[in-house]
Amino acid sequence: MTQPSLFQNLAIIGFGLMGSSLARAARRHRVAEHLVACDTDQEVCACTRRLALADLVTSDPVEAVKDADLVVLAIPVGAMGQTAALIAPHLGPGTLLSDLGSVKASVIRDVAPSLPEGVFFVPAHPVAGTERSGPEAGFAELFEGRYCVLTPGPSVPEQAVGRVESLWVRLGSQVERMDPEHHDRAMAMVSHLPHLIAYTIVATATDLEEDRLEEVIRYSAGGFRDFTRIAASDPVMWRDIFLANRDAVLEMLQRFSEDLTALQRAIRWGEGEELERVFRRTRKIRRSVIEARQAGTFKPTEEPSPPLPRDGTGPGRPG
Amino acid sequence: MTQPSLFQNLAIIGFGLMGSSLARAARRHRVAEHLVACDTDQEVCACTRRLALADLVTSDPVEAVKDADLVVLAIPVGAMGQTAALIAPHLGPGTLLSDLGSVKASVIRDVAPSLPEGVFFVPAHPVAGTERSGPEAGFAELFEGRYCVLTPGPSVPEQAVGRVESLWVRLGSQVERMDPEHHDRAMAMVSHLPHLIAYTIVATATDLEEDRLEEVIRYSAGGFRDFTRIAASDPVMWRDIFLANRDAVLEMLQRFSEDLTALQRAIRWGEGEELERVFRRTRKIRRSVIEARQAGTFKPTEEPSPPLPRDGTGPGRPG
Repeated sequence: MTQPSLFQNLAIIGFGLMGSSLARAARRHRVAEHLVACDTDQEVCACTRRLALADLVTSDPVEAVKDADLVVLAIPVGAMGQTAALIAPHLGPGTLLSDLGSVKASVIRDVAPSLPEGVFFVPAHPVAGTERSGPEAGFAELFEGRYCVLTPGPSVPEQAVGRVESLWVRLGSQVERMDPEHHDRAMAMVSHLPHLIAYTIVATATDLEEDRLEEVIRYSAGGFRDFTRIAASDPVMWRDIFLANRDAVLEMLQRFSEDLTALQRAIRWGEGEELERVFRRTRKIRRSVIEARQAGTFKPTEEPSPPLPRDGTGPGRPG
Repeated sequence: MTQPSLFQNLAIIGFGLMGSSLARAARRHRVAEHLVACDTDQEVCACTRRLALADLVTSDPVEAVKDADLVVLAIPVGAMGQTAALIAPHLGPGTLLSDLGSVKASVIRDVAPSLPEGVFFVPAHPVAGTERSGPEAGFAELFEGRYCVLTPGPSVPEQAVGRVESLWVRLGSQVERMDPEHHDRAMAMVSHLPHLIAYTIVATATDLEEDRLEEVIRYSAGGFRDFTRIAASDPVMWRDIFLANRDAVLEMLQRFSEDLTALQRAIRWGEGEELERVFRRTRKIRRSVIEARQAGTFKPTEEPSPPLPRDGTGPGRPG
């Protein structure tokens, strides 16, 4: 790799799935000369040292940001404000601050008041992740081919935004810029509502009698299993997302509830034509997702693998 | 393959994803000496002939079942009664009748009145499938490692049930027997409710303004795309399932709606502890699904593939 480093000292605060993936990717693509990992959880620090994922590992955010020219907050969105206030007095002029949060308007609102003169905040949301958590779950390829949305305020200089953008481009992401409120509304539909629905249906099953729950697990290939994957995502991270993006989530949830009630009514009254009409409409969206190259392949593991159908979608949708 | 055939003449009525997969698997595992494919859609018949998936292809169910010792109905559950009535007078004594329907009590109720003396109905539900439809979408491995639930009535001789069971064992399925009403209640939670939820959320997105829908598709890796796959399933098949299993689906849907309303309320009032409590509970279920070997791996296609984490789950769950 002959490219020069983009930064001298990169400090990543919060070293779970996202933070540790960023560290791995940053090393592979030589993003910074020196990498500092910080997590207030001592077990996470110990694991990070064992995996040798950074040049320095510390549980003290103030120590972590010393001499950093880029600080990335990879913590739940509800913790951003407090952490920013803690480290802000220790950020030198010219330091760039960024984050990986899934909600942007609330993070900007929480972080902005602490920023000292000459420190710029370039909020980022890499639309990538898995349902797993912790520094062992991260991997360097997480951001490749994924979108990363930047939502800088109007007062942030283009040069600062450009430096953060160049980081994500180097990691293989496709960078877009967006107004933070616009981002939050879009993500409410794309990501937050689907997660809330998945958490709910798994919660509904969890309340079944024990032998019925056992059956749900045994036959989960019938559709339920896809929801269990989503509903295994980090509880604190998602608690914070729903609280931070409350209005947009509630708005989308209201629309969803109305549509669900309409389908419920059609089932109750035996309105087959209405059901079929809705199901034909939704089918078309799948084609758009595939054409946008955002489809994935569902491949059973631990079992013989069927051949992949030609359109890039795979088996996994039983009746 | 040195095993003797299980049947002389196998007739498969309905030649979509399921029927054509059964035909492919039956040939590979030498289930029958002679295979007849039947579909009332002439295009499906033409495609089946082109792919040479059967010894005889016909659009006439009466012709198809002539001389058959096993007839399998692979059609939407709402069409079972009518088709059974049509073919019943042409079934010889000793013929076995089976199906692949996702709802069992209504199918038994619709089919039973037509059965002539000496013809036994052994209802089957292979818990397997994909979101794709038609004879080109089928593949021989669809049933391998999957459950197949048989729901024969008490008057069906064990010898008849055993013969159908041996077919599914030969195709690599794990066979279970169940009371039809019990099956339908279990599937309402495992499969029917998840599909209804997925159809609904995709329908909700479809109603967005065009530019917002475009964004939903672009960022669908954030969670939405998993639902589009489920919501691409066959509209007529699913219309029939919801109508045929109405009571069990409405019961599960009611529970789901109550749970969703509770979460909605928690979000509105900022009850973070309640959200976190629910999300921690649902996380545990994922572990059970993985232990039951029903988990799958979500692997992006058309993009660099990240390494698979060690527990058999994969990336795909962004925030």
